[in-house]
Amino acid sequence: MAARQPAIGLDLGGTKLLGLAVDADGRVLGRALRPTPHGGRDELIAALATTAHEAAAAAGLEVSRTAGVGIGAPGPTDPESGVLLEPPNLPADCHDLALRDLLEPRLGVPVRVENDANVAALGEHRYGAGRGVADLLYITISTGIGGGVIANGRLLRGAGLVAGEIGHMVLAPDGSDICGCGRTGCWEAICSGTGIARQGRAAAGLLRRAGGDAAAVSAELVLQACAAGDPAAQAIVARAVRYNGLALQNLLHLFSPGLIVIGGGLTHRWDAVVAPAARWALAHAMRRAAAACQIVPAQLGDLVGGLGAAALFADGTAL
Amino acid sequence: MAARQPAIGLDLGGTKLLGLAVDADGRVLGRALRPTPHGGRDELIAALATTAHEAAAAAGLEVSRTAGVGIGAPGPTDPESGVLLEPPNLPADCHDLALRDLLEPRLGVPVRVENDANVAALGEHRYGAGRGVADLLYITISTGIGGGVIANGRLLRGAGLVAGEIGHMVLAPDGSDICGCGRTGCWEAICSGTGIARQGRAAAGLLRRAGGDAAAVSAELVLQACAAGDPAAQAIVARAVRYNGLALQNLLHLFSPGLIVIGGGLTHRWDAVVAPAARWALAHAMRRAAAACQIVPAQLGDLVGGLGAAALFADGTAL
Repeated sequence: MAARQPAIGLDLGGTKLLGLAVDADGRVLGRALRPTPHGGRDELIAALATTAHEAAAAAGLEVSRTAGVGIGAPGPTDPESGVLLEPPNLPADCHDLALRDLLEPRLGVPVRVENDANVAALGEHRYGAGRGVADLLYITISTGIGGGVIANGRLLRGAGLVAGEIGHMVLAPDGSDICGCGRTGCWEAICSGTGIARQGRAAAGLLRRAGGDAAAVSAELVLQACAAGDPAAQAIVARAVRYNGLALQNLLHLFSPGLIVIGGGLTHRWDAVVAPAARWALAHAMRRAAAACQIVPAQLGDLVGGLGAAALFADGTAL
Repeated sequence: MAARQPAIGLDLGGTKLLGLAVDADGRVLGRALRPTPHGGRDELIAALATTAHEAAAAAGLEVSRTAGVGIGAPGPTDPESGVLLEPPNLPADCHDLALRDLLEPRLGVPVRVENDANVAALGEHRYGAGRGVADLLYITISTGIGGGVIANGRLLRGAGLVAGEIGHMVLAPDGSDICGCGRTGCWEAICSGTGIARQGRAAAGLLRRAGGDAAAVSAELVLQACAAGDPAAQAIVARAVRYNGLALQNLLHLFSPGLIVIGGGLTHRWDAVVAPAARWALAHAMRRAAAACQIVPAQLGDLVGGLGAAALFADGTAL
């Protein structure tokens, strides 16, 4: 019953807080958007509640008549207790924040909290490219590389609640790619926007293109230089394609998914950095793993977090 | 009801066929063992049926009074149709063999077929080191390296039925370790018995120890030479420990399991090749992933395949 009602999905990002009112078929009925407040926990709780009410109102609804409010949040979360554990880019007093217990009395409906990559996987699984696919990986290739896993039709959180930390799969332990996490040779260190920019700053020609300003060497600059025929940029992009291919091949062998859905900023350059890697992985992985899998772009764009958070109340979404 | 009855588990290996009669709590009530026949499909079907009857008889039972007969088989299987797909080391006419449909009329009870690594994961999950653990990885480090995944309390087969092919996770794509699968730098190519022996044959001192006979340089010889202080052997074993550690760290980040159970021939040298790698992985992986996970030796030894095959009929084992 409840699952046929609309739900509210809140996508709590480092800079923006998006609220969506979503019906049981994944249609967006209303939305609300505000900057993420950085003044501390009370301000954050108030902003989450207000955004939920505004998204509902934009759909001509009241929050109290919805199935519940789902929240997709950065960093690890504890979905059983509804606690935000260690959100990066939020004030320290937002760590170990009992979002569910603080918001449920205020909103009068169930509140569920989930990590943003898991929520994105759920969103694409329920309402996007992965509808009906029981075994699915969602990958975001952006500033970092993250992922969410749907296994046997359910989110895989794992005992430590960090399953799907695919960006920190080490692929080149003997190289010189130091990751933000401190490890050497993580997929993220080589192929994320941060990783591509870091390699770009080490190339004299690319540094010159940025007027000698290392901070201005972005992944976008490297990709533009690559398209313009710059050999150093082409080598960096070719390396990213190679390691994207190796990472996808590993994931095919580890999870044997029916679908890999890839989103995130770098996928705006699908043909340059993703398509050739996907083709390579599907051509070189074990036949059965490759034959059963497609690798496709995410469908839900900027709405994936809000839709996925609302999907925490979709039929059959088991906690 | 049915699940409280004993079940028969058949472990079909390349050289031996083991049958166990197992009660609902995982106790072995009877067993039967014969060499795996290599004369073709009819002989194989007959041997499987006979072994099931003998294991039941050894327990004072009739197969027809059991919950069913589970079969753990090498290579990929299709558990939905009960077909053996591509068993290595069995005659060509055993490929695409409809074990379930051929054996059910003969045995008069349900027959289920599953890949041997998945069956081992299920065995340790139901009756061994992993009882009650919802998210578990089973790893065998032996001639090759294979694995089985329990995710959210259920076997993860994946859309292509090859989930858990962890031995072919590429960790050193720029090295010179050519895997039996043709890829470069698979975990198996560096750390399996085959991989350790291959590296041993390239060391002049180890080749001398084997009387110049390359075929006599086994993983066991390398491990013995390591224990005796041979520097080349020590370097090979140190490298295997390092890559075992990196592989375990990757698996912690990908699956965030509550338990990693490691079996297989190489684990007879647990202190030399597994323990230091497990310690390293747990010390270097993300805190939450490491804190939630233990890495332990398999408990079921040579019975894991038979017990796991019988566990295909345990309560709650969903196909």
